[in-house]
Amino acid sequence: MSVTDELLANNALYAKSFAGPLPLPPAKQLAVLACMDARLNVYALLGLREGEAHVIRNAGGVVTQDEIRSLAISQRLLGTTEIILIHHTDCGMLTFTDDGFKDEVQQDTGIRPPWAAEAFTDLAADVRQSIARIKADPFIVHKDAVRGFVFDVADGRLNEVV
Amino acid sequence: MSVTDELLANNALYAKSFAGPLPLPPAKQLAVLACMDARLNVYALLGLREGEAHVIRNAGGVVTQDEIRSLAISQRLLGTTEIILIHHTDCGMLTFTDDGFKDEVQQDTGIRPPWAAEAFTDLAADVRQSIARIKADPFIVHKDAVRGFVFDVADGRLNEVV
Repeated sequence: MSVTDELLANNALYAKSFAGPLPLPPAKQLAVLACMDARLNVYALLGLREGEAHVIRNAGGVVTQDEIRSLAISQRLLGTTEIILIHHTDCGMLTFTDDGFKDEVQQDTGIRPPWAAEAFTDLAADVRQSIARIKADPFIVHKDAVRGFVFDVADGRLNEVV
Repeated sequence: MSVTDELLANNALYAKSFAGPLPLPPAKQLAVLACMDARLNVYALLGLREGEAHVIRNAGGVVTQDEIRSLAISQRLLGTTEIILIHHTDCGMLTFTDDGFKDEVQQDTGIRPPWAAEAFTDLAADVRQSIARIKADPFIVHKDAVRGFVFDVADGRLNEVV
């Protein structure tokens, strides 16, 4: 049995106690942008319930064009006004460089990725850069409530980047 | 008190019963790519626990360059080999068109977004297109275990797209 099949069995159990449909717009008018890291259970670590916040995730929790797309849709069409950014300690993005990653991919495939890998060396600095990318973007409407945090994978705490 | 402050209070409670650090690579060697929709609690609906799977999310659960970046990092640096794609019923991406969204943004800001909004009209067709984008990409290594689903927000079930 594949992992996917195992998780489909879990889903059948989840559906048995499912409460039913909720409204489409996020009830807390919030969008969270976090790293894809497996240890970040975003709903649990923020105490979010189904229907409360958009959750956007990628390698690093960085802001690229696709996160701008998601945030613009979230704010313009679905009414969110606050943004929480979450990076975390022991992040994989701290373990390589863009050039090194691209070199390896090029050696393996013969093609150099045309996109940035978005590696970083300083968690807090990259949270600040992510906030700066949002503040500088012309398509995001609400920029007054954008706060960034580093989640500590050792103790489960969010520490704000100021 | 802002929503963010309220959720930080939740996080303090979460940290009190936090079990401690887990390994960086996802234990189930799985990456999930799902829509950002607030009603999709990905860990709960798949029965995932902290540390088991990368979770990538965006508006629509679509595959653009940034999801390729995340999946390539997930597979090449952190050992994942299976991919689950999740779209869902009552999705916001079904409620507008790329041209219409861009027209509105241009009217509001004076600038037409240079990126696709990635709206779609058929959930299953867009799941299939997402799988096709992954299969066609030169940078993703493992493509044999890529399966796509539509989550039903009325009953909590994942229905496979075949």
